[in-house]
Amino acid sequence: MSLTDRTKPTDVCLNTDLYELTMAQGFWESGLADAQGCFNAFFRENPFEGGYAVCCGVGQVAELVENFVFDDEDISYLSELEAPGGGPMFKPGFLEYLRDHHLDLTIHAVSEGEVVFPREPMVRVEGPVIDCQLVETALLNLVNFQTLVATKCARVVRAAEGHPVSDFGLRRAQGPDGGLAVARASYVAGASSTSNVLAGKIYGIPVFGTHAHSWVMAFGSELESFRAFAASSPKNCTLLVDTYDVHQGIKNAIVVAREMERAGERLAAIRIDSGDLARLSKEARLAFDEAGLPYIKIAVSNDLDEYTIQSLFAQGAPIDSFGVGTKLATCDPQPSLGGVYKLSAIRRDADGPWTPVIKLSEQAYKRTLPGIQRVLRYHDALGRPTGDLIVDDTVAHEGVAHRMVDILDPYRTYDLAGEPSGLLEKIVEGGRRTAPPEGIEAARQRCADALMRLDPAVTRFLNPQVYPVGLERGLAELLRNLAEEEGARSGRPTVA
Amino acid sequence: MSLTDRTKPTDVCLNTDLYELTMAQGFWESGLADAQGCFNAFFRENPFEGGYAVCCGVGQVAELVENFVFDDEDISYLSELEAPGGGPMFKPGFLEYLRDHHLDLTIHAVSEGEVVFPREPMVRVEGPVIDCQLVETALLNLVNFQTLVATKCARVVRAAEGHPVSDFGLRRAQGPDGGLAVARASYVAGASSTSNVLAGKIYGIPVFGTHAHSWVMAFGSELESFRAFAASSPKNCTLLVDTYDVHQGIKNAIVVAREMERAGERLAAIRIDSGDLARLSKEARLAFDEAGLPYIKIAVSNDLDEYTIQSLFAQGAPIDSFGVGTKLATCDPQPSLGGVYKLSAIRRDADGPWTPVIKLSEQAYKRTLPGIQRVLRYHDALGRPTGDLIVDDTVAHEGVAHRMVDILDPYRTYDLAGEPSGLLEKIVEGGRRTAPPEGIEAARQRCADALMRLDPAVTRFLNPQVYPVGLERGLAELLRNLAEEEGARSGRPTVA
Repeated sequence: MSLTDRTKPTDVCLNTDLYELTMAQGFWESGLADAQGCFNAFFRENPFEGGYAVCCGVGQVAELVENFVFDDEDISYLSELEAPGGGPMFKPGFLEYLRDHHLDLTIHAVSEGEVVFPREPMVRVEGPVIDCQLVETALLNLVNFQTLVATKCARVVRAAEGHPVSDFGLRRAQGPDGGLAVARASYVAGASSTSNVLAGKIYGIPVFGTHAHSWVMAFGSELESFRAFAASSPKNCTLLVDTYDVHQGIKNAIVVAREMERAGERLAAIRIDSGDLARLSKEARLAFDEAGLPYIKIAVSNDLDEYTIQSLFAQGAPIDSFGVGTKLATCDPQPSLGGVYKLSAIRRDADGPWTPVIKLSEQAYKRTLPGIQRVLRYHDALGRPTGDLIVDDTVAHEGVAHRMVDILDPYRTYDLAGEPSGLLEKIVEGGRRTAPPEGIEAARQRCADALMRLDPAVTRFLNPQVYPVGLERGLAELLRNLAEEEGARSGRPTVA
Repeated sequence: MSLTDRTKPTDVCLNTDLYELTMAQGFWESGLADAQGCFNAFFRENPFEGGYAVCCGVGQVAELVENFVFDDEDISYLSELEAPGGGPMFKPGFLEYLRDHHLDLTIHAVSEGEVVFPREPMVRVEGPVIDCQLVETALLNLVNFQTLVATKCARVVRAAEGHPVSDFGLRRAQGPDGGLAVARASYVAGASSTSNVLAGKIYGIPVFGTHAHSWVMAFGSELESFRAFAASSPKNCTLLVDTYDVHQGIKNAIVVAREMERAGERLAAIRIDSGDLARLSKEARLAFDEAGLPYIKIAVSNDLDEYTIQSLFAQGAPIDSFGVGTKLATCDPQPSLGGVYKLSAIRRDADGPWTPVIKLSEQAYKRTLPGIQRVLRYHDALGRPTGDLIVDDTVAHEGVAHRMVDILDPYRTYDLAGEPSGLLEKIVEGGRRTAPPEGIEAARQRCADALMRLDPAVTRFLNPQVYPVGLERGLAELLRNLAEEEGARSGRPTVA
């Protein structure tokens, strides 16, 4: 997508699924224009068969809400849409309602960089049900992918064991936004830098790069090309050695490194982008050490992910840094978080009480949780999280609870100890942000802290332990009653 | 990513990997500022284990090139960047060179919607090697993903056997651009509509939507919610029946359909979004037919892709339309095309001849093709494509050739018959587009024609036949000679 296709901020409000607008019109017509809703954005399973996810993208939700305004051009487009059965899709009165409509929402969210778990609310949106719907798609579009890619990057960074990881994924991302999202979320999750210059400019992320094979091919020989690169970028010189043959590339790098030394400079590194990275990196390390050039670092790239990096270290590969592109930017092998946004409570009369609601399904995993939910995270004496309790403020509850019911298995309960802290923070009130935007560095630090405190049994890749998430007993009771009631009312499935 | 992060068209030129700029500086310093390069964008394997890809995204390349200008803010950002070894990353003289630099490129490309095959150039970029590098990342960022998602959608549309497919993927895409790219490429590849309103506005794609589970949950009962939706959107009424129980949902839909009939309206369809879609769609069809409501259509959604759709029809599911979201927008299970952009010829002296170049690798599949390449597509008497011949204009060749060497297997040759047509069209000359932008409908029609003419053995999902792509014999000879020369010069691998 070319950036020049759209250059006005108000395009944010058409970045939505049509049904959000159709439903908004329906609520407006059905006497529910003032009804209040409470929606939660959450995911149902940890991505990558892992034990956790890293919350990301919510830092941009407040800006989305504040800029959500339909202008004349938007209204004009909507007024031209025809319903499949004929006639205009939207009524003039509704479009007048939309014009200059502002979102009167209050939003609580998990802070960026914090770890999150399946089925607990990452973002809780309250306000007129119309406004809740209008923001749904754009909110999910922000939070789903960034949370997914932050989680992927956290795994890659963990596998790299302290060695720098650079995001190289822009060319495989879904357009410029995709590239920006990858760079931003990866930096939050611990990447050291990005190749994406625009992300550097917008977010202040350190930018990094080497050179391409084309650089080498453009010169008469590899050696000539290395000399030219060293002359042009002596303070930023990583030489790509696999254009023709890695062994010859290493020899040429040694020649240039010695020439650089004579000029008072140092070759920073080589990069290997193909072949057997374990074997080639060992051969390169040996060659540089034998040549008295132990400071030359070895960077690698080539379809890397957490598993290939782990395998390289298991083979003793002396690699100093990683450029990770395709599999980071596309979150291979799970390119979607599957995050959803579900109504959990409704207040049809603005002065009345909240009514908690659920969605049932033939598929149990699609059942939702009711209520106005908060999450309490319990910690042990060392500050390590031990379990998350979901509390519903529409039912009587114990506050700081001592026992919770497992979120997936109601026959399993946990005892809770220690002092909990609330996981959701208010980020928007009455449609306005409650605080200035947090810098990306704060989110990055929070992520590093959260991952450090998390039990390694939860962060490991293979068969991670399930982090306990459960329902406060009042909420578990409510869920059971609602499932029973709705089942009875709407036709309980019969066993044929 | 919020759209409001960047609202100026010139951000296009920082939407790049840092190394493009570092290399540009290097060429500028190394006396190669005027050297001419020829680069090809291509992919190495058909995605999804299929037999073809659908070219997409190239329709936006001309706009990218025309808008590629560094402004003061961009230059200011670049001037502040520090090299890892200290000092500024870019020299003031180079940044002055970049300021108001325009890309002096000539670009040939396969037209959008046309089918393409591995290793043949989709986009051929010629001009100053600096300009070729500067545009690389943004070009790949446009073409890689759109080609991938167009290919995915073509497969989904094929599985749907003429029934409408609507793109529902926005919430799972990589930000707004990702959603726009999915909608645009899917429409080119045969989708009937999108849920993405912004894509409807920008590209004129028909927009489509139903309602969400939240609509049902916001009312006191499902029946009440269906009545309200029918009242609000009688000409666009598809009822989602799986919020609580599909059987009850179908009964409620029948009640509302009869009420609509009395009001002179018709219920268009129901949507089922969970459970056993084959069984439930049959039950719904039977119920509607028995109720004398045979016109009510059945739409389904829920993690669909080409394989689930094929399976549904194999089970005789009476489904009328498909909403395809997550697996379309993320191109699951292959979220990257792996498209690359490689130098194939260089002219160090603007008046001299082109020198064809190749990149070698330990991995044979990473070897590139040399020369100034064109593609001739041969057709049989019925206009069906029979094979693609890659011709290099830097070597003597037979023009319309009678034999070609297989691109992967040099021991295999094909005889060619019939009249070929050139696959690449000039889209940019001297940095300006050569023609007004083509409408998206033309690309859509081209795609439909191309897929209709392609041998079904090539388009089938399971073990598709390999479409013949080969090298004109002069090019095959050149490749062999260059591989031999470079191997000898740069240290042929020895068998240890």
